[in-house]
This record gives sequence, C-alpha cells and structure tokens, in this order.
Amino acid sequence: MIAAVIGGNRCSKEMARMAEAVGRELAKRGAILICGGLGGVMEAACHGAKAEGGLTIGVLPGTSRYDANPYVDIPIVTGMGEARNVIIVRTAQAVIAVDGEYGTLSEIAHALKMGKPVVGLNTWELAKAGREVRDIVVAKSPEEAVEKALALAGGAYK
Amino acid sequence: MIAAVIGGNRCSKEMARMAEAVGRELAKRGAILICGGLGGVMEAACHGAKAEGGLTIGVLPGTSRYDANPYVDIPIVTGMGEARNVIIVRTAQAVIAVDGEYGTLSEIAHALKMGKPVVGLNTWELAKAGREVRDIVVAKSPEEAVEKALALAGGAYK
Amino acid sequence: MIAAVIGGNRCSKEMARMAEAVGRELAKRGAILICGGLGGVMEAACHGAKAEGGLTIGVLPGTSRYDANPYVDIPIVTGMGEARNVIIVRTAQAVIAVDGEYGTLSEIAHALKMGKPVVGLNTWELAKAGREVRDIVVAKSPEEAVEKALALAGGAYK
Amino acid sequence: MIAAVIGGNRCSKEMARMAEAVGRELAKRGAILICGGLGGVMEAACHGAKAEGGLTIGVLPGTSRYDANPYVDIPIVTGMGEARNVIIVRTAQAVIAVDGEYGTLSEIAHALKMGKPVVGLNTWELAKAGREVRDIVVAKSPEEAVEKALALAGGAYK
Repeated sequence: MIAAVIGGNRCSKEMARMAEAVGRELAKRGAILICGGLGGVMEAACHGAKAEGGLTIGVLPGTSRYDANPYVDIPIVTGMGEARNVIIVRTAQAVIAVDGEYGTLSEIAHALKMGKPVVGLNTWELAKAGREVRDIVVAKSPEEAVEKALALAGGAYK
Repeated sequence: MIAAVIGGNRCSKEMARMAEAVGRELAKRGAILICGGLGGVMEAACHGAKAEGGLTIGVLPGTSRYDANPYVDIPIVTGMGEARNVIIVRTAQAVIAVDGEYGTLSEIAHALKMGKPVVGLNTWELAKAGREVRDIVVAKSPEEAVEKALALAGGAYK
Repeated sequence: MIAAVIGGNRCSKEMARMAEAVGRELAKRGAILICGGLGGVMEAACHGAKAEGGLTIGVLPGTSRYDANPYVDIPIVTGMGEARNVIIVRTAQAVIAVDGEYGTLSEIAHALKMGKPVVGLNTWELAKAGREVRDIVVAKSPEEAVEKALALAGGAYK
Repeated sequence: MIAAVIGGNRCSKEMARMAEAVGRELAKRGAILICGGLGGVMEAACHGAKAEGGLTIGVLPGTSRYDANPYVDIPIVTGMGEARNVIIVRTAQAVIAVDGEYGTLSEIAHALKMGKPVVGLNTWELAKAGREVRDIVVAKSPEEAVEKALALAGGAYK
C-alpha cells in the first residue's frame, strides 16, 4: 500500500508536527510513503516515517537526486518540474494533504480527477459557482487522517 | 500573445456559449488560443476563435491527433495524460477558466503556482483553513474576462 | 501536415545550411515545422521556414518562452526537460534528422518506436548485435529529405 | 545505489536468462534495480533481483499499477507513455542495456545525453556519418556488465 503525503515546501512548526505524525502513523500501519521529496511538509512526513522504520519515496521535480530531503530512501528524479505532481498522486492509493500551497492544490485536483481518496488536514476547501464541493475528506488529527485514507484506499485504486 | 481557455470536456449550453464568446473575443484582439484540444468548453472556445479567424492550439493528453476537436489548427500530441495540463498553462501568458471540473482546478492551481494571471467565469472558488483565497480574478462576462486577462498578462509572463 | 526537424543545439555552418534548406523546402510545400525550439539545427531550420513564410513551432525543454530562437512563431513551454523530445515526434507526421547528438538519437528512437517515418541527413546510423538496422531513410540532399518525408507521411500517421 | 536495467517488453529465452543474471548480480551487490516495470527483459531482471532479496522499482508508462510485472516491489505509475523512459535513466546512477528495441535505444540516448554510464549486453551499436561511436561500454557477461556499471557509477552521478 502506497500513500501520498502532499504539502508545501515550507510550513509552520505546527504543520510540520502534524505531517511528521502522519508519516509515523503511515509507517506503523505498514504503508509506503510517497511525496514530492523536498522540504516542509514533505520532509516532516518522511522524517516521521523513517522514525518508525517505514519506506519513503520522493518524486523530485529537478534533475538531481541531491534535491531530496535526507529522509527520502528512494529519490525518483524526473526533471519534469510540476508535471511530477501527477506521478505522485497517480502512484498513490490514497492522498493525505497537510496544509499546502498551490502545488498541493494541483495534486488534490489531479487526485480527485483520478477518483482517488483525498483526506485533508487544515488544507484547501473548494467551492464552485457559489456552492461548496466536499470531495476532500476532512480529518481532525493525523491519526484520523491515516485511518480514513487507508480505509478509503480499499476499493478506490484502479 | 497566447492565452489559455480551460474548462471541462463536457459543459452546459450556457457555458458553451460563454466559452465561444471568450474564444471570439480573444481572436478579435489578436491572441492565439491554447487549450486542451478536446470537447466541451475547449471545443466551444476554439469554435469561437475560428469564427473570428484566430489561431488555435490543442495540447492533447492522448497519442492521436484525431482526438482534437475540429476547430483545433495545431494539435500538440503529448501522450502524457493529465501532465499535459502543465504545458497548457506554462505556455499561456494568461489563463481564462470557464466553469470546469477537477482537470480545470489542476490547471488553475498550476497557473497560480507559476504566478500567471487566472481569470474565472463561473468557476472554482478557493479557501484554505477557513479563509477565502481570492487569487482568481472574477469576471462577469466573456468580454470582461478577455479584457482582464490581456491586461494582466502585460507584466506577468517570465 | 506537421513535420519535425531534429538536430543538435550546436552545429557546423555546413549542417546549418542543410537544416535551413530543409526548413525552406518544408515551408514551400506547405508543411508546418515543429522542433525543439533552441539553437543550431533547430534555429537554422526555423530560419529557413520563416524565409518562405512558413509556420514554426518550438517545443521548449525549459520554463521560459524566451529560450526560443527568434524564428519560432509558437513557443510551447513544457518545463519537462528531455521528456519534451517525445512530444516533438509524437506531434509530427514525419521526422527529418539533420546531423545531431544524443538528444537527436533519442528522438529518432522514439519516432521509430511510434512507427513514424524518419529521414536522415548526415545523421546517426544504427546496428544491433552486429547487424545494421536500416529504418532511418537516408537522403542525400535537403530537397530529397523533404520529398521522402512528405511521401512517407501519407499513410504513416495514426 | 540505483541501477537501471533496460530492454524490450519481449525477448528470447537467452536474453531473459541474461537479464535475470544481471538482476541477481545487482541485488547481490546491494543495488536497487529500476526498470520500465513491464515484461521481457524488465520482468526477467526483476525476477533475478527478487531471487536475491533485492528491491525493484518499475516506472510504468500506463495509468494502472497492475501493469507491473509480479516482481516489481514499487510501481511508479506515470501515465506519461514513453516519456517515462527519461525518468528511468534520470533516476539511475548507471544503466545496463540488455538486447532491446527502439524504446531501449531512446533510453540509451537519454542516458548518454545526461552523461550517465551505459553498459551494453548484446544491444544497440552506434555510428554517425560513417564513424563508429563507442560510448556504450561493451560487456561480455552479466557479471561483467554489473561490475562495470557499478564501477563507472562512482563518479558519474550528479
């Protein structure tokens, strides 16, 4: 089971703690973590996963493996810039968004287009033409986010 | 000047009329239209642009040029699926979103990440952690959308 | 009809003259020219096409439209590095290779994998396990290259 | 250390034995194997690596993880068709080509363009304008191929 943790390259300490807890919980539950491989939320989530002995994959936008944060086990070097966002969510069976900027929003959108479950912690909220769109599953804690993501991934992956 | 029109592969007649008017107005103002090359909003916008003698580019997700709608002059065949969304907004100097589903939301997010102006007609609205995020410039009519997109494109392209 | 001219970002004056003549001939015959949009063979071919009033497309590897040579009418900005090579040959109905380095070889290989006609002027020659592989159609002059490319494109595009 | 094994989706039994031996040797030496994740040479190499307890990554062209051969531990699902070839060689610190068709040739070319070491077993041979180009390091056996690839990877990765 591969789960994506998506979020910005910079984040507050509070969001980093949350991302780290998500990474820990995923590793405890035996899930492989995939992310964009850089800093901020991505680094915190990888840090958490490694603390629990998990496996981490970083899908990098640039052309050097050395762009990866130190907690990435397997750097996938794409050289494709933002197009690598599509690969992260395409590879994952469930997606957990923590905070996040516009790159994260693009990943949420790509995942929902693919019909993959997206669980959100303090992240984007969507509306269209005045009506709320509630396809991002809201979680209140890292543990709840992982619980929901794994449960939803059951039947969701094609 | 190249402007993107983004929106769903299916849309209502009302949204198609709006997209067609956007395409017409872009062509009248001398802008080249780039889009995803398929149906719905994309086809309507291309139709409008061709009616005014404009040039249209369709960046296709599949591997066949015959996937393009009949109003595409230049089909760019990527075979890269949703990753082609990045190319559409990267190539455009301004982006006009009409209605739209999750593919459109991914394009809005990629464009805002790149710092490009995005003008919206009846499209996605964003909020994060309870606060509205107003980076999509709202337009009330196709003419206003084109006017704002061209004005904003002035200094925005790197 | 869209034809690709592929070749290195640097080339000798002789190869530039050849590429320019290919561009001229394609434009005279009404073909749209697609290439990687940079210097060397690509720039010479675009120069030739513009001298005859043709239309030129440059599919750029980087993130800025200003990377395009001055003879590119339509810069397609991918930000995807070498992966853009696939788009060039996927979009073209026939490919003409002039001289070229390893990027050109990758384009030849992608085109042959897709079943597209590849015509070569002073370019790569292939062998496998000791036997020559003659899938690149050899031309002796720019005019012959264009003639063969257009003839072969007839039934080759899917 | 990540090494790529590249080769066709179909191959003879002899080539499969060779690819399997390459996979075994890479795993014995502690290298992670990356490949295109499909059949033929890719499957045989993954089979060999798993027989020695190695870790295998398959970078898939399609949109489903179920396209991966049964010996892939980590399917990276790109949905980007042939553009995924670039990711395979960009991620690897050395490349071993076994036999191979045009997809393999494209990977050899991309790797050489990136300055990465390419070792060949019964694979493509290159010439340009009548002169042989000897940038593919020839190996006579799977063991020699792995030995040379690991030695060359030392200083080659940026």
